[in-house]
Amino acid sequence: MIKLSVDLMGSDLGPVELSKGLLDFLKDYPDCEVKAFGDPKILSPIFKEEKRVTIMESLQVVPMEVSPVQFLRYKKSSMYLAIQEAKKDDSIDGVVTSGSTGGFVVGCTLILKNIANVLRAGLTAPFITQVRGKQTVILDIGASNVNTADELVCFAKMGSIYARKVLNEQNPSVYLLSNGAEEGKGLKESVDAYEKLKDYPWFKGNCEARDVLDGTRDVVVTSGYPGNILLKSIEGTASMMNSLIKKAFKKNLFTKIGYLFAKSGFKDMKKTLDYRATGGAILLGVNKVAVKAHGNSNAYGFYNALRVAYSMSKGKIVESIKEEMKNER
Amino acid sequence: MIKLSVDLMGSDLGPVELSKGLLDFLKDYPDCEVKAFGDPKILSPIFKEEKRVTIMESLQVVPMEVSPVQFLRYKKSSMYLAIQEAKKDDSIDGVVTSGSTGGFVVGCTLILKNIANVLRAGLTAPFITQVRGKQTVILDIGASNVNTADELVCFAKMGSIYARKVLNEQNPSVYLLSNGAEEGKGLKESVDAYEKLKDYPWFKGNCEARDVLDGTRDVVVTSGYPGNILLKSIEGTASMMNSLIKKAFKKNLFTKIGYLFAKSGFKDMKKTLDYRATGGAILLGVNKVAVKAHGNSNAYGFYNALRVAYSMSKGKIVESIKEEMKNER
Repeated sequence: MIKLSVDLMGSDLGPVELSKGLLDFLKDYPDCEVKAFGDPKILSPIFKEEKRVTIMESLQVVPMEVSPVQFLRYKKSSMYLAIQEAKKDDSIDGVVTSGSTGGFVVGCTLILKNIANVLRAGLTAPFITQVRGKQTVILDIGASNVNTADELVCFAKMGSIYARKVLNEQNPSVYLLSNGAEEGKGLKESVDAYEKLKDYPWFKGNCEARDVLDGTRDVVVTSGYPGNILLKSIEGTASMMNSLIKKAFKKNLFTKIGYLFAKSGFKDMKKTLDYRATGGAILLGVNKVAVKAHGNSNAYGFYNALRVAYSMSKGKIVESIKEEMKNER
Repeated sequence: MIKLSVDLMGSDLGPVELSKGLLDFLKDYPDCEVKAFGDPKILSPIFKEEKRVTIMESLQVVPMEVSPVQFLRYKKSSMYLAIQEAKKDDSIDGVVTSGSTGGFVVGCTLILKNIANVLRAGLTAPFITQVRGKQTVILDIGASNVNTADELVCFAKMGSIYARKVLNEQNPSVYLLSNGAEEGKGLKESVDAYEKLKDYPWFKGNCEARDVLDGTRDVVVTSGYPGNILLKSIEGTASMMNSLIKKAFKKNLFTKIGYLFAKSGFKDMKKTLDYRATGGAILLGVNKVAVKAHGNSNAYGFYNALRVAYSMSKGKIVESIKEEMKNER
């Protein structure tokens, strides 16, 4: 049995939408139990038939744009209590929220704490690529700003474990994000990390930002700040292109007819690009599975976040990281 | 009369293609003269009717992937000599190449030297945005890796001069790239630069990577390394989306028919996204106009690089930067 601690409150679309995702998830995963944090007035009617959900009252909600310091004032919030429960209850495998990323990173780091020898937890996103169904794991995308070479090495190890255990890549390839493919390019910490990673068979060298999504890479490691720039410029460019595609089809009657004919192709494209299928971001390196669904998750997105938490728990990823990091330093 | 020193050799498509761009440019800009560096065997026949081009023999070509140190060994190359000529000949306004970016940055910095009080020259790219015809100027995109707060402030000033003088924005808005829109977000140098920029009326605060291309910003300032990540992830994502659009239209007979109907809309989109129209990158802050066309420039791309160099020369941008920076420190 997998047990998850789930915050149903903080999100753009609200607890009813997230609850729908949770119900769908429980249907597909019969070996899973959930402690669900939120307002019982809203949640109890939704889950009254579902014995595998225990409602845990918490009426406070963490605002989406909370600062790390502010977060610590929300000790009665659904997010704080959900993380705390994962700490207190040994039988819980992981925690899932779609609330504030900043709050979640601080909360997990302070409450769940990093696995021994993990220098920094890494905020990790599986990215969709141009190859349908193929995901590339990128970390850190913003838990830190600047990382040391040793932290980057730690990210590389955790990322490759994730690709192996959750994405089922037998021999995941790991790259360092850089501004040039050749050795010696990039920020000092990254050049030093290259030196430390060189002898690992899974380390394949540097990768430029333009090649990250070509579908040939399993893991790309970066300091948090450029990782965050990478994430957001991919999002921004994709959204710009999407609005230009819409505009192109809306130009006149002919282009509108064109859309009717081309629709099936563009539906495929939409599926390839559906980031909701990735479930959101993961905080790798803390003592429980920790998944942060997109803030604007619909039921399907939240379903996928729960599915990722489930797969990580089943894959015993926390145990694997503990094992791998045991002999460090 | 505007005079340019032009390297016609280093590029992916070769000197004949670039020469075609130069000829087109000279037709449209009758008040321009050029010293053209390259192999006279190739260039002389092309320009034999064009009195405004003086061929300058240089048989050596700088490889595209040259390191800064290697570049200094190519003292007889078309790029090196073109830059040197801009230094030696006072009447020359600027230099244009489509060869190695790294070589060009080193060459311009060492030979032309920075304008007094310019702490660092900034490699600057006008980016196409989702608003057709609207460009956003981003610097630095990779002349440096890490920049100080004072360097970022200097980039902000130079960028706003460029937007005013070349893009004809009367009151250009200037932003700092960051991982959050609020003050206090980002790398230390950027937080410090925010403090220093705050009192300038043209400074509008932080801008996240996802909003850079929304067409509402004139200048976005960043350290070189994240700037380079931004540039390349935009390129990579746009190219991924383009190949997915092609795939969508090629799916089956219906989608192919759809393309025939929708073609005119997608041609508009292609024009909006045609980065060749921007001409390439500019090194702002050295003592002459310095334009680096895309390595894969065709005649049209190179034409636009020459046009940018022409507009910068006409707009007296070097003089404006000298004037603006005179009273610094």
